[in-house]
Amino acid sequence: MTTGQTHLFIPGPTNIPEDVRQAMNVPMQDMRAPDFGDLTKPLFTGLKRVFRTETGRIFMYPSSGTGAWEAAITNTLNEGDKVLMSRFGQFSHLWVDMAERLGLDVQVFDCEWGTGVPVEKYAAALAADKAHAIKAVFATQNETATGVGSDIPGIRAALDAASHPAMLFVDGVSSIGSVDFRMDEWGVDLAVAGSQKGFMLPAGLSMLGVSLRALEVSKSSTMRRCYFDFVDMMKLNDDGYFPYTPPTQLFHGLKVSLERLETEGLSNVFARHYRLAEGVRRAIGAWDGCRLCATGPKWHSDTVSAIVVPEEIDARDVLRIGYEKYRASFGSGLSKVMGKVFRIGHLGDLNEGMCLTALAIAEMALVDAGAKIELGSGVAAAQDWYRTSSATALKVAAE
Amino acid sequence: MTTGQTHLFIPGPTNIPEDVRQAMNVPMQDMRAPDFGDLTKPLFTGLKRVFRTETGRIFMYPSSGTGAWEAAITNTLNEGDKVLMSRFGQFSHLWVDMAERLGLDVQVFDCEWGTGVPVEKYAAALAADKAHAIKAVFATQNETATGVGSDIPGIRAALDAASHPAMLFVDGVSSIGSVDFRMDEWGVDLAVAGSQKGFMLPAGLSMLGVSLRALEVSKSSTMRRCYFDFVDMMKLNDDGYFPYTPPTQLFHGLKVSLERLETEGLSNVFARHYRLAEGVRRAIGAWDGCRLCATGPKWHSDTVSAIVVPEEIDARDVLRIGYEKYRASFGSGLSKVMGKVFRIGHLGDLNEGMCLTALAIAEMALVDAGAKIELGSGVAAAQDWYRTSSATALKVAAE
Amino acid sequence: MTTGQTHLFIPGPTNIPEDVRQAMNVPMQDMRAPDFGDLTKPLFTGLKRVFRTETGRIFMYPSSGTGAWEAAITNTLNEGDKVLMSRFGQFSHLWVDMAERLGLDVQVFDCEWGTGVPVEKYAAALAADKAHAIKAVFATQNETATGVGSDIPGIRAALDAASHPAMLFVDGVSSIGSVDFRMDEWGVDLAVAGSQKGFMLPAGLSMLGVSLRALEVSKSSTMRRCYFDFVDMMKLNDDGYFPYTPPTQLFHGLKVSLERLETEGLSNVFARHYRLAEGVRRAIGAWDGCRLCATGPKWHSDTVSAIVVPEEIDARDVLRIGYEKYRASFGSGLSKVMGKVFRIGHLGDLNEGMCLTALAIAEMALVDAGAKIELGSGVAAAQDWYRTSSATALKVAAE
Amino acid sequence: MTTGQTHLFIPGPTNIPEDVRQAMNVPMQDMRAPDFGDLTKPLFTGLKRVFRTETGRIFMYPSSGTGAWEAAITNTLNEGDKVLMSRFGQFSHLWVDMAERLGLDVQVFDCEWGTGVPVEKYAAALAADKAHAIKAVFATQNETATGVGSDIPGIRAALDAASHPAMLFVDGVSSIGSVDFRMDEWGVDLAVAGSQKGFMLPAGLSMLGVSLRALEVSKSSTMRRCYFDFVDMMKLNDDGYFPYTPPTQLFHGLKVSLERLETEGLSNVFARHYRLAEGVRRAIGAWDGCRLCATGPKWHSDTVSAIVVPEEIDARDVLRIGYEKYRASFGSGLSKVMGKVFRIGHLGDLNEGMCLTALAIAEMALVDAGAKIELGSGVAAAQDWYRTSSATALKVAAE
Repeated sequence: MTTGQTHLFIPGPTNIPEDVRQAMNVPMQDMRAPDFGDLTKPLFTGLKRVFRTETGRIFMYPSSGTGAWEAAITNTLNEGDKVLMSRFGQFSHLWVDMAERLGLDVQVFDCEWGTGVPVEKYAAALAADKAHAIKAVFATQNETATGVGSDIPGIRAALDAASHPAMLFVDGVSSIGSVDFRMDEWGVDLAVAGSQKGFMLPAGLSMLGVSLRALEVSKSSTMRRCYFDFVDMMKLNDDGYFPYTPPTQLFHGLKVSLERLETEGLSNVFARHYRLAEGVRRAIGAWDGCRLCATGPKWHSDTVSAIVVPEEIDARDVLRIGYEKYRASFGSGLSKVMGKVFRIGHLGDLNEGMCLTALAIAEMALVDAGAKIELGSGVAAAQDWYRTSSATALKVAAE
Repeated sequence: MTTGQTHLFIPGPTNIPEDVRQAMNVPMQDMRAPDFGDLTKPLFTGLKRVFRTETGRIFMYPSSGTGAWEAAITNTLNEGDKVLMSRFGQFSHLWVDMAERLGLDVQVFDCEWGTGVPVEKYAAALAADKAHAIKAVFATQNETATGVGSDIPGIRAALDAASHPAMLFVDGVSSIGSVDFRMDEWGVDLAVAGSQKGFMLPAGLSMLGVSLRALEVSKSSTMRRCYFDFVDMMKLNDDGYFPYTPPTQLFHGLKVSLERLETEGLSNVFARHYRLAEGVRRAIGAWDGCRLCATGPKWHSDTVSAIVVPEEIDARDVLRIGYEKYRASFGSGLSKVMGKVFRIGHLGDLNEGMCLTALAIAEMALVDAGAKIELGSGVAAAQDWYRTSSATALKVAAE
Repeated sequence: MTTGQTHLFIPGPTNIPEDVRQAMNVPMQDMRAPDFGDLTKPLFTGLKRVFRTETGRIFMYPSSGTGAWEAAITNTLNEGDKVLMSRFGQFSHLWVDMAERLGLDVQVFDCEWGTGVPVEKYAAALAADKAHAIKAVFATQNETATGVGSDIPGIRAALDAASHPAMLFVDGVSSIGSVDFRMDEWGVDLAVAGSQKGFMLPAGLSMLGVSLRALEVSKSSTMRRCYFDFVDMMKLNDDGYFPYTPPTQLFHGLKVSLERLETEGLSNVFARHYRLAEGVRRAIGAWDGCRLCATGPKWHSDTVSAIVVPEEIDARDVLRIGYEKYRASFGSGLSKVMGKVFRIGHLGDLNEGMCLTALAIAEMALVDAGAKIELGSGVAAAQDWYRTSSATALKVAAE
Repeated sequence: MTTGQTHLFIPGPTNIPEDVRQAMNVPMQDMRAPDFGDLTKPLFTGLKRVFRTETGRIFMYPSSGTGAWEAAITNTLNEGDKVLMSRFGQFSHLWVDMAERLGLDVQVFDCEWGTGVPVEKYAAALAADKAHAIKAVFATQNETATGVGSDIPGIRAALDAASHPAMLFVDGVSSIGSVDFRMDEWGVDLAVAGSQKGFMLPAGLSMLGVSLRALEVSKSSTMRRCYFDFVDMMKLNDDGYFPYTPPTQLFHGLKVSLERLETEGLSNVFARHYRLAEGVRRAIGAWDGCRLCATGPKWHSDTVSAIVVPEEIDARDVLRIGYEKYRASFGSGLSKVMGKVFRIGHLGDLNEGMCLTALAIAEMALVDAGAKIELGSGVAAAQDWYRTSSATALKVAAE
């Protein structure tokens, strides 16, 4: 029999704050009631503030984030459309796979796992595409499998430099609400998010930000779609209704999680994610033989760290021991990096103590699995950082 | 300020039993944990028992029931395929609409709202289709908008009589788990259900039963799909995993709701739905000037009753008064029957007292809206039935 | 297996509003934390508003209401003290029993069950007590066993008329927060309440209002006490702390239930209780052979109605049938009125639909038990009242 | 705004397991229902197994543990009765204080804080008391304020050696259900427990184990009592009822916490508490300048460790910093040891990761408060122990 709390350090679903959890414990209600919009309409408005869009539109689907990926593609592109994508981890890989299966003509840049979107290559391809055959450019802002963040403003700059009209698609599932994202300022046309990451909710709700331009483009898209169709949603969303039964329970939770993000302030949320992540990175730096999968600081992700374990051990042992012996869930190494990597998710509702728990357990599991790291070494490095780093100073930097 | 409980009598989402509600109040967990299948695999097995299929396969999607409609079509049919459908209410209408938008060649039988699937017409069309151009026959087992049940075994008989190989699609969203449904025995190939009806859960999870034959057929289906693709699911479901983050919270609830259905016994569940529904129907029969939308006993639905109000009043007033003055949610009249009909949902976790609450409030709202019915008349008719009818006797009949 | 919600119509514990229920679903916390008073201090203030005392003091004990009865006596009286009490139901009886067991010299007026505090007899006894031997006068404002309300201002008038210094003790367990109570204006010295009635919480917290005078008197009380001692509480309560671990969970619920009472407004709360109660009384009036236990309108309780069943039937059958066949809990007939009476609690978080549920089920159970009442008759009487009575008009009357 | 979970490491209320928390989230119910005993009777039986009594009787009071102290005294002793007590911490002090206020003639042994019950002194006093003037001997099995465990079997041996008939009272509030306790085998007559410690529930329910002999003795006790009276309880408890409204919500939680204790097995529960506590002690041993308040291994408590901080710092700073900066609640130094001591509670639903969280945060707070300990030093010592110690081996030892 297990005792004590489960220590959840996967990069989503994340830990649910108590007030969000309370808020979801509701009886059912009529999704066609005259006042249903009192619940739902502020959610659209609140999400616009988090996505940082004033002119765009938010869609909420009863689906995982994968559904919003599909919604983005099927509503705005056509079969055979040429698109630019890059692949450097399991989630960027899966989006490529979806795009191909949905009939797009995908030009893929395969990059080293541990790096992110190759902005220069995108720039070159865009500059070369005088005919504007490329209809869209895709970017995974945060590759959850490798703990790598990418430079979205850089991609916008490349588009602008080439005066290229391609739409910009961003997978922000594990970034929006946790690290800086600015839909309007960065000219993002389709931005995908999910409930179970920075929004601190269970899975089951995806959010999609769509620019005015993409909404216009969608009118001429001929892909077959129904469940994810923008038009059905738009007909009803303005009054707060949905074309099918929405997950009301999650709406009640989202109401509170949006309030939390607003109360803390987005820039404080981002600063906190940086500060907590940095503690984890310092701990990893103190572990002999371990290193981040992200190949350099420019790729550091503030929401998840992927740790390459020493060659002589198997990361799956770390995961198994963590789970079975210490009741902790870390993220596994997916696909190419299976056995080489384990991940610590550090996003959503988190504080110093929780990060130290993750590190203390990870150290025991690493040693149990055969790593030669010193117990307490990473914890001490993180403690030192958490003790002395200033949340205020960081806040300024993060803005 | 409102006080006291909200009285929820819409045909879904239905009232959640306390133990199901408790079960969903969980912290998040790792959907890739080695023992995650301990939670999910029994759900597939339990759903097979409820769908009454031994050879078929169950899919669970993070989506509303509409998503499972789409999954059924896009995985097994091809653009241009000829299908038979019938339309006699808002939900059968929407399914037709989806089929057309997804590119099927739909032969629609439009029937009077208040009747159901025209089995004879289907039989004739099938018999005439010697070339077997018809690839699938669609039936809405329970039209939620009009409170009409249809004869699924009759459709199977028609297919068999014509020795026709068309697949049989059934929308069982508001029937499966509440009234008799037998996937294998009736030769149903694709059966759609949703979490928020007979399964007594919040919306957000759809279930799809797929026959072996349909799985075979799906291999040659070429429709573009990704989120709802069978193959991605099948690769992982056997071990209890999913291709994207599933709604774990609902799985915990489903575990308990399946236990409830098993403990009560499906035939008892069906008998209870009949008995409670019959009380509501007797009450409606006692209301001067009101009648069921269902045009005869063969169309009676045991999960929802649509009530045609006297011509001189507007059903929207009944709904509004019920909601604002008496804190009760009834189902509205959708589309064609707007203003003429209001609905009482009587499915899921329900008992006599709850039905009487619905009737007592409906009577007040009807009188407030101008109807000339006698207060207490319907309640008395239902009380008399509930007092004297035997659950045991009915159980036998229902089997 | 039971299905559907349990219909709870006992006069406490009452139905918990959803927001109160949510609020209690909390992890544990440190009751010695520096900010613990942020939670608890507003509770004392809020309770003062509900008790309508500005100068008095509130105590909260982890105990049932019985504990607060004991706290009231042991902190302010001495063994052998003469007190006036009256007995006309199980709860007034139990308070007499306690007073006697704690060593008071109790002069009891035994009154017909169905009547309340005999103000004239109290007046006479007080007038005759020139020596002021009587130290305290006890009154049960609402006798929960018989559904009888008493005239507390009348008792105050009797004390004043006799210029008698005796303290006034009031059991307000099933009245405070539901019907009019004014501690300061009525000169109440010790007022007892409990969490599980008008405060819409689980049992486990008692509240005691104590006047300045009673606090002064308590300094010379020599009864042995420790758990319920005022002094231990007072030392810590001003800073929001308690001399032993308090029931924090209930504090979180109380916070919300106080907010509810304030938002609705106490006079509206009282008007609502009157209006809902009156519907129940009209229903009872329509039931052939049944009558209220309260012998006249002056004794009517707005929080609970005790119904005397026809002589030829046993009220215990009504209760048993209601519980087993219809999943409803009514209040039983206690002690002297066992078998003759069943009770409908109508206090706390309630609305019209809930009262009609109680009445509809009671009618079925009465008929099942052999009563000759007409099904629907009481429901119709109550419906008519609920449809046509004006909450606004009543509000004025109640002030 | 705070983010992330609160880290609760006070020695009660303890962290509530998820299934216990779920179980308490219930609507209210009738405490006089015919089947109420189905809920409550197994609780008495289950508690008997935890108290390890077959012949004794369990009482459950809606009160804090302090209430059960009072119940124990007022039901079995008389004013002026001579009793032996010892004082070596805030809780043993408070029990002495209560005994004196309730009129007992208390012979108190004042001992150094950091030691426990002085068995030899008790033995001498008992041996000297040939007239058997001493009616009861009191012992605090676990002094929560100093983290000191005492030798209850030793006291029993002293009583037996002197053939002394005095009753044995044990305060097991922070020990029963967490460390070894054997009511029958050790001849304990009155054993006090509380819901918010080893039973992993909110505060609000106290449990009292009473031996047959004490029940017999209680018949001649003449102390004034009512709320805590055994007789009222016994009249109703056998059928599962209570003399006043019990805290049903906590009963539902207790049902699950008892199941947890049985499933884990009491000896495994005790072994786990030892193992987790030992890790904390090893960490403290690694902190330069800190030491346990318990003056030697024989006094070690497996449920709470009181840490004496270096003289140059104030333990209140450690507490304040822990709470404000790191969102952690440690136990404060009470009374005599205020400013010198802070405490880590390690009882109830706990695991290695949680203990390491406590230690990691304590280290940061200590350093922030000026202590010269090395960050990570205690964590490393505990990690090493947790990694390598065997739960199985310990289990045998603990039996």
